Amino acid sequence: MTNLPDDPRLALMLLSSTVEPGDAELDDLLAETDPIEVVKRLWEGEVPERLGRITSAMVSCTHDPAERAADIAAATKACGAKVLIPGDPEWPDQLRDLTLVCDADEPHVRPPRCLWVRGEQDLARLCRRSVAIVGSRAASEYGQHLADDLAADLTEAGWTIVSGGAFGIDRAAHLGALARGGSTVSVLACGVELPYPKGNHSMFNLIAENGLIISEWPPGTSVMKHRFLTRNRVIAALTAGTVVIEAAHRSGARNTARYAAELGRVLMFTPGPVTSSMSAGVHQLAREPWEARLVTRAEEVIEDLTGIGGPLATPPPPQRRPFDRLTEVEARLVESLPRGYVVETTRLAAAAGVPAEIAAETLEHLLRTGWVDRIDNRWRLARGGQS
Amino acid sequence: MTNLPDDPRLALMLLSSTVEPGDAELDDLLAETDPIEVVKRLWEGEVPERLGRITSAMVSCTHDPAERAADIAAATKACGAKVLIPGDPEWPDQLRDLTLVCDADEPHVRPPRCLWVRGEQDLARLCRRSVAIVGSRAASEYGQHLADDLAADLTEAGWTIVSGGAFGIDRAAHLGALARGGSTVSVLACGVELPYPKGNHSMFNLIAENGLIISEWPPGTSVMKHRFLTRNRVIAALTAGTVVIEAAHRSGARNTARYAAELGRVLMFTPGPVTSSMSAGVHQLAREPWEARLVTRAEEVIEDLTGIGGPLATPPPPQRRPFDRLTEVEARLVESLPRGYVVETTRLAAAAGVPAEIAAETLEHLLRTGWVDRIDNRWRLARGGQS
Repeated sequence: MTNLPDDPRLALMLLSSTVEPGDAELDDLLAETDPIEVVKRLWEGEVPERLGRITSAMVSCTHDPAERAADIAAATKACGAKVLIPGDPEWPDQLRDLTLVCDADEPHVRPPRCLWVRGEQDLARLCRRSVAIVGSRAASEYGQHLADDLAADLTEAGWTIVSGGAFGIDRAAHLGALARGGSTVSVLACGVELPYPKGNHSMFNLIAENGLIISEWPPGTSVMKHRFLTRNRVIAALTAGTVVIEAAHRSGARNTARYAAELGRVLMFTPGPVTSSMSAGVHQLAREPWEARLVTRAEEVIEDLTGIGGPLATPPPPQRRPFDRLTEVEARLVESLPRGYVVETTRLAAAAGVPAEIAAETLEHLLRTGWVDRIDNRWRLARGGQS
Repeated sequence: MTNLPDDPRLALMLLSSTVEPGDAELDDLLAETDPIEVVKRLWEGEVPERLGRITSAMVSCTHDPAERAADIAAATKACGAKVLIPGDPEWPDQLRDLTLVCDADEPHVRPPRCLWVRGEQDLARLCRRSVAIVGSRAASEYGQHLADDLAADLTEAGWTIVSGGAFGIDRAAHLGALARGGSTVSVLACGVELPYPKGNHSMFNLIAENGLIISEWPPGTSVMKHRFLTRNRVIAALTAGTVVIEAAHRSGARNTARYAAELGRVLMFTPGPVTSSMSAGVHQLAREPWEARLVTRAEEVIEDLTGIGGPLATPPPPQRRPFDRLTEVEARLVESLPRGYVVETTRLAAAAGVPAEIAAETLEHLLRTGWVDRIDNRWRLARGGQS
């Protein structure tokens, strides 16, 4: 008889180490059956053929599932992490939206079964007002500057920055948030005890102290290309919207963007020079039928995230010149006065297309406000005047 | 009795020197009455009060309207220009669309009454497949490079470039078209005999030789700020679409863009760094409810201009790596092989989430194609291999 874990949480942890997250067939089983029962069926070979095949190697290596689950729990505890499962108060319910986008072509798009979490914060609370900032690992200085700035300003405005912990844009976004004392969330494609890439080690320590490092994979799991793609769906689903800052044509960030669009999250991008290969992928986003929104600063991101009823980005301060304060008739008269000449009222009125008596009256006003001089009943632009 | 011009064309030329183009009240009169009759009414004071007032100065200075019309015709001939009026075979009928957008707030949005034209080409034919490229006068090197490139490539593809002859983006667009032997069209806000700005003198000579310089104003008319705004509606109406390349927040190019959008023309913009004030205006276009399209190269402009049924921009060539040619199962197996280790088939299958017998079969294939080595029935990534 199989030795089974005695707790659903332990069973889910074991299942996450046995079948890759997002697997539709396993998750369909979990939807109708208790996790402990699913472990039992897996180990006793009572599952659909495909599930049996992809787990056969793991099942045959693991004679005592309960012991293996206990080992995973011990490893989790050893690295100071905890495991959240759906129904926990800290579980972010918006992840459920992933059930909306799964289709036959993409069996790996299902909500997470459980999440390993490093850090003291409440994941559900942090992500209630959160935005993802993602982009290229090989980002330019420009892109990193933008990510840092945007993350800092969004943090200041009370938004949690979610990203993937990679070099480049992800790193700049996390650091921008941390610099303003923000509780940023890093979603990994490996175990939370040894975040990848190692080069971001000290940043990850800061995030674990001030924010959260989360993963669907148990401690000891190493990164694989397909795991980044699976992970990206969580970044998109956790947040109200995703901002893509720099992405080459082939970029995981574009994958996150597609999930965001399919989930009905707000998809945004920052533009860059068309001559930069690092911006080619974001510019392509704008031409795809995803209604990606162009954003250039935090205020615009917030405007797009909060939609109707939310704050509108204040238009950038216009550079108002004295000339702009003139009425249309005043402006036409001033502009029709050639520099260095004096002109009679009727000629000036004709040139400006203004009725003669209105021109006469308006010119008196322009004289008082210093725009024109009067010389022998003719008019001249005031020297060194307002324009 | 007033001495009237004996030809509707002469009458329209005279009217264009008397009332600014686009004036709704005069153009309403012209819609119902012969131009010669309109001249008669103006000079005999039988017009609505406002029209009478704005023309009173000119009318009182001009005792013989026929003579003045003949003077304008002589000045036109002297600079080698001709005058087109609606109904002429070379008249671009799409200008009529301007009647669609005129409203009470903007009385100056009416189709041109007549056009002065310098150059040998057929305006209607040239503009049948035309696109406007407009932007800031104080353009950056980046913007000018982009305008030049885009104009050259669109010219090569058989499109006529229309612009306003200004410094910066306009100039770069005209020159880009000329460099490929294109017949570019410059729409001026002053007389065609002395195009503004003078610094573009030699460019204007090239345009007059190879393309067209056109204007709604008679020779001798100088530029005024409000004339640029009036002129912009013609640039938008002549063309199938307008591309805005660099525009500050306050920019005439944005005015052209709005006309294009209101006319149902295709409005496009090229993005730039968000840190560049020269791109601030174009990025704002993208956030206004005008459905401005982001474009980065000529192919995308053509795709947008020709719409459904037209050529689609070919996606940029993907940088395909050997890894991308692997099937998903092959890729998972290759990625699950840690560098520098040998792994048994069943362990590798478990790590990759691939059924053991499929893994065995696929690994044989990967061995033959040089991706993996077999050592004592275990597997290792091939050194210096394909990845």
